[in-house]
Amino acid sequence: MPKIIDHDQRREDILDATWELLVRGGIEAATMREIAAQAGFANGALKHYFPGKDDIIKGAYERSLHRLGDHVAAATEGMRGLAALEVALRATLPTAAADQTASRILLSFWERAAFSPELRDGYGDHLASWRAGLVQYLEEAREDGDVDSPVSNEQLVDEAVTLNIGATLLQALGTDYVNGDYLASHVDAFLDRIRVAR
Amino acid sequence: MPKIIDHDQRREDILDATWELLVRGGIEAATMREIAAQAGFANGALKHYFPGKDDIIKGAYERSLHRLGDHVAAATEGMRGLAALEVALRATLPTAAADQTASRILLSFWERAAFSPELRDGYGDHLASWRAGLVQYLEEAREDGDVDSPVSNEQLVDEAVTLNIGATLLQALGTDYVNGDYLASHVDAFLDRIRVAR
Repeated sequence: MPKIIDHDQRREDILDATWELLVRGGIEAATMREIAAQAGFANGALKHYFPGKDDIIKGAYERSLHRLGDHVAAATEGMRGLAALEVALRATLPTAAADQTASRILLSFWERAAFSPELRDGYGDHLASWRAGLVQYLEEAREDGDVDSPVSNEQLVDEAVTLNIGATLLQALGTDYVNGDYLASHVDAFLDRIRVAR
Repeated sequence: MPKIIDHDQRREDILDATWELLVRGGIEAATMREIAAQAGFANGALKHYFPGKDDIIKGAYERSLHRLGDHVAAATEGMRGLAALEVALRATLPTAAADQTASRILLSFWERAAFSPELRDGYGDHLASWRAGLVQYLEEAREDGDVDSPVSNEQLVDEAVTLNIGATLLQALGTDYVNGDYLASHVDAFLDRIRVAR
């Protein structure tokens, strides 16, 4: 019987190995050679699955992002407007110590993306879709009469997203650099400013 | 006459070369070998000035930070309280396209700092001193009767600093990812929330 190679599984193995190396030592530790060794591949064999290092980093990052997306989608399922906005804002706050792994992957990705148009475009797409989701919740919340603010939806979302990104970066540096209580309070204050008093 | 070597100048030359490489290609491009070549040094000669790569990155970052510190100090000279707070918040916003270089250096530094206790501690000191300055302005502003907020000074500063860091990261990725008008408006909104109406 011929040996059957599960190529999807091998791609996953490579991303697992990359993830492991990124978490331990950042972008410099994740060389093609180290990734191959960690995944149990011959050095040249990685190229059958990913043409270069940026493609692997992109793959690891996109997988992480899809997991976060699934998490938020599950948390907001069946919700709309202000309720969905609140859940989405809180579900993506990097407050749990366990999130530090994901924050570090993201930091390594950001560092590469600043110098790679392809990675940067990928992040731009993610950012655009994240923002569009929050803007939609805000539009619904205004329709529902739950939100009233002279500030545009785009500007409100810019504030929330920028704050979230800053918190993620601080958490990647050290869990003692980010204060989960403060972050939750920043979201409270943000929602209080736009919520219609009942 | 013996050749006189200006060691301070040579350290500056090494930091200039590192800066150049970091701006062009990020942390991976700034290898000891490339830094030596760019600065016109023999490969082993760098070690007389900096023991290792992290020390060079730290040096380049600290120099950039001192320049930012000088810029803010000059902008707030002779000021206190609310006026100093406002100037300090606006002076550190990464809005000008020219700031992208500094933001990219910072992103490379952050990526390394997540995996180096020494670099991380250096950033922790910077963060603590940045926060302490803003907290002091807030204390003065409350003394002067210019600020009234039920939120603690530490929490207010956490919000401003986290937002600034998020904006810096987005600017390092691409100047079109950060909207200077929105950022200025976020600072306006922040100040409006705590300012005593006259």
